[in-house]
Amino acid sequence: MENYLKEAKAAASTLATLSGEVKNRVLNKIADALVENSALIIEHNKFDMEEGERNNLSSALMDRLYLDESRIEAMAQAVREIAALKEPVGRILEGWVTDNGLRIEKVSIPIGVIGIIYESRPNVTSDAAALCFKSGNVAILKGGKEAQQSNEAIAKVIQKALEAEGLPKALISLLPDGSREGVAKLIKMDKYVDLIIPRGGEALIRFVNDNATVPVVKHDKGLCHTYIHKDADFDEAIKIAINAKCQRPGVCNAMETLIVDEAIAKEMLPKLKAAFDAESTKLLGDDATQKIIDVDAATEEDFDTEYLANTLSIKVVKDVDEAIAHIRRYGSGHSEAILTNNHRAAEKFLNEVDAACVYVNASTRFTDGGAFGFGAEVGISTNKLHARGPMGINDLTTYKYKVYGEGQIR
Amino acid sequence: MENYLKEAKAAASTLATLSGEVKNRVLNKIADALVENSALIIEHNKFDMEEGERNNLSSALMDRLYLDESRIEAMAQAVREIAALKEPVGRILEGWVTDNGLRIEKVSIPIGVIGIIYESRPNVTSDAAALCFKSGNVAILKGGKEAQQSNEAIAKVIQKALEAEGLPKALISLLPDGSREGVAKLIKMDKYVDLIIPRGGEALIRFVNDNATVPVVKHDKGLCHTYIHKDADFDEAIKIAINAKCQRPGVCNAMETLIVDEAIAKEMLPKLKAAFDAESTKLLGDDATQKIIDVDAATEEDFDTEYLANTLSIKVVKDVDEAIAHIRRYGSGHSEAILTNNHRAAEKFLNEVDAACVYVNASTRFTDGGAFGFGAEVGISTNKLHARGPMGINDLTTYKYKVYGEGQIR
Repeated sequence: MENYLKEAKAAASTLATLSGEVKNRVLNKIADALVENSALIIEHNKFDMEEGERNNLSSALMDRLYLDESRIEAMAQAVREIAALKEPVGRILEGWVTDNGLRIEKVSIPIGVIGIIYESRPNVTSDAAALCFKSGNVAILKGGKEAQQSNEAIAKVIQKALEAEGLPKALISLLPDGSREGVAKLIKMDKYVDLIIPRGGEALIRFVNDNATVPVVKHDKGLCHTYIHKDADFDEAIKIAINAKCQRPGVCNAMETLIVDEAIAKEMLPKLKAAFDAESTKLLGDDATQKIIDVDAATEEDFDTEYLANTLSIKVVKDVDEAIAHIRRYGSGHSEAILTNNHRAAEKFLNEVDAACVYVNASTRFTDGGAFGFGAEVGISTNKLHARGPMGINDLTTYKYKVYGEGQIR
Repeated sequence: MENYLKEAKAAASTLATLSGEVKNRVLNKIADALVENSALIIEHNKFDMEEGERNNLSSALMDRLYLDESRIEAMAQAVREIAALKEPVGRILEGWVTDNGLRIEKVSIPIGVIGIIYESRPNVTSDAAALCFKSGNVAILKGGKEAQQSNEAIAKVIQKALEAEGLPKALISLLPDGSREGVAKLIKMDKYVDLIIPRGGEALIRFVNDNATVPVVKHDKGLCHTYIHKDADFDEAIKIAINAKCQRPGVCNAMETLIVDEAIAKEMLPKLKAAFDAESTKLLGDDATQKIIDVDAATEEDFDTEYLANTLSIKVVKDVDEAIAHIRRYGSGHSEAILTNNHRAAEKFLNEVDAACVYVNASTRFTDGGAFGFGAEVGISTNKLHARGPMGINDLTTYKYKVYGEGQIR
């Protein structure tokens, strides 16, 4: 492991000085190579699919695993789109001259060596590789074991393309020991690795966070709320609530709890129930909710659960303060929305709720690098530090200060 | 410990919404209270001084510990200066409108609860408290045990001032259990604590980094190099080298190793030796250096040592590439300088050396929040993430995205 990481670290300085032109050419060659080698990749993917069948993977997981020519074309297209992004390295973030004439530039630079730990979908392998490469970072990738054969084939194709361009294959590689022990070692190698990004289940993320000495940017759970304030536009509020819950219930920016003002509960809850019934959403409610509509009880535990399913807890509150207090207690700091036409209530909510993204009159489903206009998404950070919320490619850079003097001493 | 931290976290939301006007008024009251209570603080400081004498603390440590009226006035003045800084919370860092009309603002907000672990000097207690308060963060302070009585007196004065303004004293407090075990607990409390800043010796920082589950911004060692390129202005280079080493040898931005181009070594090394001899600097050199001037051998270990003393290793190199390679191997990523009039050499060095601050023709001693113009310094980060190099008060904030919609759904 240590020799492997030494090579990775040594490769980082080569990569940091490549021009955008070279990086983009290499990325386009990688995209071509993926398409040209799709038969090989599909062949290896078949092994994973067969293994998945033997292990009775769910049909959802099997679908995420599956690759065919059009999916590989989409992977290649994603790499080309990453190549087309604005160069993230060398941006002058700030610049000024000190009183004694030092000219200081704060400039974006690559982070160094980044370890990305993720699950099943093999397209993440090429996405993560391209995002790291474009931002000048060496990528150490550790995918799910269900996709091991597919990931190895994809990585081999990418490494061959790197070598054909005269670049070391250490720039993009799969972690050689992908076991739990291998990961446990990797996350303690702060001498060689500059950042770990774990994407996956709560257990994986907790394990990485608790054991890493390398800095971690987590992609943790989203327990998101939508609060319908008494001054909301009722029809719009129902549309947003349905969208936030039902458009894709299994993702982190979907709503898990709906909060409704007591003053409008009698009018709104039956309308909401009708709309959610049409989407076959399972509804649970607190006492006040149960007095108005016929739903099962939402327990303390329900309000604390990220369902990742078409299930919704409902809570009735007195006012915006109680809504904010509920979110403070149960929210995961991911995405929270207020629906209202009341200016002061909206501003209070936006200012006082501590979350990566706070919305007024929109669906929490927009918390996403693509929807934010970042072009390609690294993920959604639930960290408070370094990067928070949707992460674009610029979040894979750090900075240095360049200081230009003319002989200044202290 | 858990109840104490729960209170701290609860207090964070109060503090996050205070206006700059209120925060500044409170900070000025704290400054007044420090001056008004200087007799009390000095009385407690005497206990620490007596204890220090019993424990045979060095005169340097005793001097750092000592407080009198003028030093307390300086502490109060530092708090007033922090109050006068530009409000760090609520800055709009970026803003844009997405294609579907969502208006997104990226806004600076407090981080939350910050634990700061530091050593001996009691003025750090009021400095750190004021920096955290101004940036809207709850401060949990853990000073050195040598200064325990002084720190307790200072914290008590600050807390009384907070309570007189109707604010909870949990906003600024000393960690109740300041033992190693207490620190070990604190740094695992990621449920309540958002950031740990350790400032101190290598052992403390390693302990915190290896055991924390809370994110850490380190203030680690500085093994800084100055490289005299063959096209340097020789007189200026000598002045800068002397300044970088001798002006204050015990600090992290002082030079530890001087690198000299082989083409100018015969001319420069004797001049440098004369200048350093006048400053009583102990010089060590590699083989090539020893052939030109009479100095002891610099070992592999010397090149890897942060002396924090008036000692300097000298290395002769062929060219800028070898200088960069040496810095890559031994540098700590803190501050590195090239002295040259050669444009390409300067740019190559600035671009390829990976350090928080890279200089051309200036002393590394300028790596400092004050010298950078940040007004007050939180410290100097040797992290690559969140904050790198001199940290100003803005580095004690994170951000949220405020998203203004008009009914948008996906």
